[in-house]
Amino acid sequence: MKTKTILLAHGSSDPQWSNTFVELTRISLNKHVDACLAFMELSTPSIEDAVKQAKDEGYEKVVVLPLFLAKGRHLKKDVPAMLDEYKANYQIETELMAPIGEHPLLGEAISQIIDDLLIQG
Amino acid sequence: MKTKTILLAHGSSDPQWSNTFVELTRISLNKHVDACLAFMELSTPSIEDAVKQAKDEGYEKVVVLPLFLAKGRHLKKDVPAMLDEYKANYQIETELMAPIGEHPLLGEAISQIIDDLLIQG
Repeated sequence: MKTKTILLAHGSSDPQWSNTFVELTRISLNKHVDACLAFMELSTPSIEDAVKQAKDEGYEKVVVLPLFLAKGRHLKKDVPAMLDEYKANYQIETELMAPIGEHPLLGEAISQIIDDLLIQG
Repeated sequence: MKTKTILLAHGSSDPQWSNTFVELTRISLNKHVDACLAFMELSTPSIEDAVKQAKDEGYEKVVVLPLFLAKGRHLKKDVPAMLDEYKANYQIETELMAPIGEHPLLGEAISQIIDDLLIQG
């Protein structure tokens, strides 16, 4: 099934906030044409824009990877409800992955940053 | 100056959310007695509880490391205002660091997770 991956960040009214995610994902997105960055709210492109574009480009499924540190209301309720709606409206399969914060590699990086700081401190 | 480091997460009404941060910081906090985990809102202990406790323990300064992916309104306005208030109320020095999301190690880990996913996908 032709699948597009949407890297999903929360979004903010502050442009510097979304730039952090543009920078974080730039190298990966340059390497992978089947992926894009989108935002749950406040910033653009919205997740709905990204789903619509995937449909227009001929993708049959979108997989959403949340660039969130942990799973709360947004990832348990809001985003699943949005994906159900888009699935019905745009006739495209959707899948929501666990947030990157639950990935062991991210945990190790965070521990390393904290340890470095505390040893210096 | 006797300094305590507060690892600051956003907080959520969802207990699973804060557990993610308890797990993420457990190993580092076991190694470093001069550090603790606290939350900006909704979860406990609050950042104010952590500052009060630091003062009671004889610390002269708190350094706050935000466990946030990016800097938005919370880290530009809300947390600085809270720290100004605590500094005045508890007579303790305060310092707010850049969020972990701006640290190169975290960027590399996120790129790695995205790349692994996109290669598998």
